Amino acid sequence: MLWLTVAPNRCDMRRMAHFISRRQFTIEWGHCDPAGIVFNARFFEFFDQGAWALFESALGVKPHQLASVFGIIGIPLVESGARFIAPARFGDVVEQTSQVAEFRRSSFDVEHRLLIRGAVAVEGKETRVWAGRDPADPGKIKSQPIPPEVTAKFEVG
Amino acid sequence: MLWLTVAPNRCDMRRMAHFISRRQFTIEWGHCDPAGIVFNARFFEFFDQGAWALFESALGVKPHQLASVFGIIGIPLVESGARFIAPARFGDVVEQTSQVAEFRRSSFDVEHRLLIRGAVAVEGKETRVWAGRDPADPGKIKSQPIPPEVTAKFEVG
Amino acid sequence: MLWLTVAPNRCDMRRMAHFISRRQFTIEWGHCDPAGIVFNARFFEFFDQGAWALFESALGVKPHQLASVFGIIGIPLVESGARFIAPARFGDVVEQTSQVAEFRRSSFDVEHRLLIRGAVAVEGKETRVWAGRDPADPGKIKSQPIPPEVTAKFEVG
Amino acid sequence: MLWLTVAPNRCDMRRMAHFISRRQFTIEWGHCDPAGIVFNARFFEFFDQGAWALFESALGVKPHQLASVFGIIGIPLVESGARFIAPARFGDVVEQTSQVAEFRRSSFDVEHRLLIRGAVAVEGKETRVWAGRDPADPGKIKSQPIPPEVTAKFEVG
Repeated sequence: MLWLTVAPNRCDMRRMAHFISRRQFTIEWGHCDPAGIVFNARFFEFFDQGAWALFESALGVKPHQLASVFGIIGIPLVESGARFIAPARFGDVVEQTSQVAEFRRSSFDVEHRLLIRGAVAVEGKETRVWAGRDPADPGKIKSQPIPPEVTAKFEVG
Repeated sequence: MLWLTVAPNRCDMRRMAHFISRRQFTIEWGHCDPAGIVFNARFFEFFDQGAWALFESALGVKPHQLASVFGIIGIPLVESGARFIAPARFGDVVEQTSQVAEFRRSSFDVEHRLLIRGAVAVEGKETRVWAGRDPADPGKIKSQPIPPEVTAKFEVG
Repeated sequence: MLWLTVAPNRCDMRRMAHFISRRQFTIEWGHCDPAGIVFNARFFEFFDQGAWALFESALGVKPHQLASVFGIIGIPLVESGARFIAPARFGDVVEQTSQVAEFRRSSFDVEHRLLIRGAVAVEGKETRVWAGRDPADPGKIKSQPIPPEVTAKFEVG
Repeated sequence: MLWLTVAPNRCDMRRMAHFISRRQFTIEWGHCDPAGIVFNARFFEFFDQGAWALFESALGVKPHQLASVFGIIGIPLVESGARFIAPARFGDVVEQTSQVAEFRRSSFDVEHRLLIRGAVAVEGKETRVWAGRDPADPGKIKSQPIPPEVTAKFEVG
């Protein structure tokens, strides 16, 4: 009764230098809680935005066209986590870097770093799958092998 | 330049049965994304709500009075994570359980389970600190020892 | 290039007493901003939740089945507004009432009242349409006449 | 028992051309609902962001310093509303204009327009007050006269 059937046999891809996507944004009033700092759930929204921006930069495909271009449903999350190192406040300018830490056969890890005034404030990690419809049951989602032409575009040097 | 100085010497508290808080809620339209499932950041909002509800149930103190009753600033997050096992959709009724997995000297872990139709859909874990003002610098936050009368109220049996 | 073509000839329905839906919820930490009060956009989320709850109560149809049961796309908003009379804070218990103020041929107004400790804190109004696919262009949405069996279920006395 | 006591005697300020602030942003995945369009509450978040940006542009004061620079609590909302004319979707680039429509003695209206591909998709209006602490009861908020040097900076030509 699992949502996703992640293919078990893992691809033997070496860890290598990956493309880094960068974006900058400002902490808004509505991002913050009564302690005057960004409410924790917002950071996972920032991670999500960074992941889409990363794929757009690396693949040259608009996020809303990713599914149709590659014949998938999307790149849903199966796991995510964050370490909150320093607070982010209203008006802070955030520099976010996002990169794929590892591609496996049909899943991959994205790492995010949010820097404020040059210091890491928050680190995040997402595990996502390359997901299509399950041929055996179109109402279900099934992970699919990530095409080599996709992973190639994230390699650097 | 760390936000929190978590006291290093860890309390030798045995892992024991802890109080479990339960709440029920329904997935709303606005919780869901274009895939028709709950947007991942929302689950961290659900975890946060569960954590406050847990403290209210165990301590008998209203969440908005927690800080003043115990002379702290709050119980900010230093780490959190989630595993997304099955999707949650508009109209799904969620049974959430929340409990402290472990108390340390000045920090603690809260575990959340979200069940839909009896099966675990999402698991979450938060690490929070018992935080007050830093006496050396009132503009900063500093972790403080969790009072024994607090941890005692979470013990069961 | 309008999203919706609201049918102009308005139904001659008399204003009458309408079914009132009630729900209760508590203001959460994550709803509030650095001023310690609910961030304004959240109230529109509360209105939306109240509108779905109203339709469920009046029609006896689960919100996520509303579209399929009545052969529509949904009940999208074309206008909304709020008056913020008193602040809502973390821990406040909110009593929300929602009711249709007026049904027209293919659109209707929903009024919401949020009470805290017996006094109105926020009033909201939404104008929504009964919307289906445009037969001339299935990629577009078109307002449709609201079935009399629907409006009848909202009448009281 | 009102939250704000808006001073009744209204300033006789002529309606004049006001400074227009412009910003551009992209609709994110997490902004959208299962209909694939931006969830209505998000627009009020966009309005809020536009209002802060407008004040920063006109006054040359960072949003998080507005309160301290002018000795106020903030510029809380007393009313807001929106007309949803065309849907906004994931990946859409939004051009937002924000301007003060009218300054009164201690309150003012901000108008927002969100354009997508050159056409107005959403219009919004906020009524905000220039708010300080009530001298008679510091736990309360009281509207204050808007300083002429503030309104002067919004005038154009």
